[in-house]
Amino acid sequence: MPAIIPIDDPLDPRIAPYRDVRERDLVGREGLFIAEGAVVLRSLLTASRHEALSLLIAEKRVAALMPMLEALPEGVPVYTAGQAVLDAVAGFPLHRGILALGRRAAEPEPDALLSGLGRRAVVLALCGIGNHDNVGGIFRNAAAFGVDAVLLDSGCCDPLYRKAIRVSVGATLMVPFVRLAAGTDLVGLLERHGFATISLSPAGSVALAGLRRPERAALLLGSEGPGLPASVLARTRTVRIPMAGSFDSLNVATTSGIVLHHLSFVAPPESVSE
Amino acid sequence: MPAIIPIDDPLDPRIAPYRDVRERDLVGREGLFIAEGAVVLRSLLTASRHEALSLLIAEKRVAALMPMLEALPEGVPVYTAGQAVLDAVAGFPLHRGILALGRRAAEPEPDALLSGLGRRAVVLALCGIGNHDNVGGIFRNAAAFGVDAVLLDSGCCDPLYRKAIRVSVGATLMVPFVRLAAGTDLVGLLERHGFATISLSPAGSVALAGLRRPERAALLLGSEGPGLPASVLARTRTVRIPMAGSFDSLNVATTSGIVLHHLSFVAPPESVSE
Repeated sequence: MPAIIPIDDPLDPRIAPYRDVRERDLVGREGLFIAEGAVVLRSLLTASRHEALSLLIAEKRVAALMPMLEALPEGVPVYTAGQAVLDAVAGFPLHRGILALGRRAAEPEPDALLSGLGRRAVVLALCGIGNHDNVGGIFRNAAAFGVDAVLLDSGCCDPLYRKAIRVSVGATLMVPFVRLAAGTDLVGLLERHGFATISLSPAGSVALAGLRRPERAALLLGSEGPGLPASVLARTRTVRIPMAGSFDSLNVATTSGIVLHHLSFVAPPESVSE
Repeated sequence: MPAIIPIDDPLDPRIAPYRDVRERDLVGREGLFIAEGAVVLRSLLTASRHEALSLLIAEKRVAALMPMLEALPEGVPVYTAGQAVLDAVAGFPLHRGILALGRRAAEPEPDALLSGLGRRAVVLALCGIGNHDNVGGIFRNAAAFGVDAVLLDSGCCDPLYRKAIRVSVGATLMVPFVRLAAGTDLVGLLERHGFATISLSPAGSVALAGLRRPERAALLLGSEGPGLPASVLARTRTVRIPMAGSFDSLNVATTSGIVLHHLSFVAPPESVSE
């Protein structure tokens, strides 16, 4: 049985990490993160690379969550509170009534991450994607299509930001990722590990439908608007998704889904022995 | 030159339709809609099926928008105001500083809409999709891949809701759509006009990569969670997008993008003379 600990006082020090959720989102949590909602909690407890430290749950939700709570590792406290206390702790109406505090897994060195992947692998490399909805949506697609890892340059937002976790329906907790230091030579890093680099760009030289999948494929995505840096485009194979008429705009998360489906099912590589 | 009319009083009756934007979003606008932001304004003024009635623009934005404003039809007033007046009118901080009031085009009869399409056509049919982000995202993909029309059942939200327009980057203003009366036999309607009906479902009988495009294709999408009604699935061809491992969740807008790309470029029909 999990340790269920009722909380009556919003200022109780045991639930201090949950206080003023939105303000703390902005300043960061030094190795910790907050996850919210039942679907995300399930990912955190069953499929996450990261560790749950505690839970804070509305009293009215506890019964329904009990099967999940009973599987909690020893020593993870479940704090419960009435809705008014919860709202006072979080600093806004917490309709979902489910929060978890997690500790980030250590991020691997980029070289160690890439060299540890199979001979046949797909990674995503994100450049300058600062929108939490887009990063969350990209990770959701990465999990759905079995992407092996995600690299994020220093212009990307944090995949463990609360909203990014939520939009990804927990995928940012599951898919291995590494944040690259500013100035990292992304293309060089990928090439060093035998990844064929494929940059998505509206002006790409090859239409996606004609692309065959390399055994080790790295898919590079930039932000909507500026796109990938010219220095990256110049060193990689550029691929476009043709569009109708003058409407030249696909969401970057949707783009990732289209390309990953293509690489996974339309143009898979010859089968190889690993 | 457009008529530029400075507004100093948030209660000026000429800008009454812009008042309390969010509250009015909820109750609806009886044949009118509000569009916001520069990208959406461009769609409204250059590619929309609907009519602009007036604009309300922050003074500081007018100069940059002048090329667009100069192309306005005669008799469309451009109201301008300082930021404080704008915020007081809208009822929240209007950072974008650009609002437009539009009048909905009359919706065609569903039979008239479908019979007027070419021999080779793709339509989307949405069932129970009540989320504005998803409806907006689906329309964005519809515009990007040249979808001919969108049918929405009575459980869907309004594509001309402010947020849906914004998320679609104006595509809901461009792509023809019709909202079906409750109780409409959607599958019967589509079959009557020679559309092959393709339902997306995680349990679909055919994987998308094996699907050939019919000349007249109707793609049916349900909401995340409940999906399409069993009565619809039973009468249509069901198609699935295979996913990795246990992560069985694609966003419905992303799904629409993947399927539309497939139908447009991977499995196009034999070319036909129209």
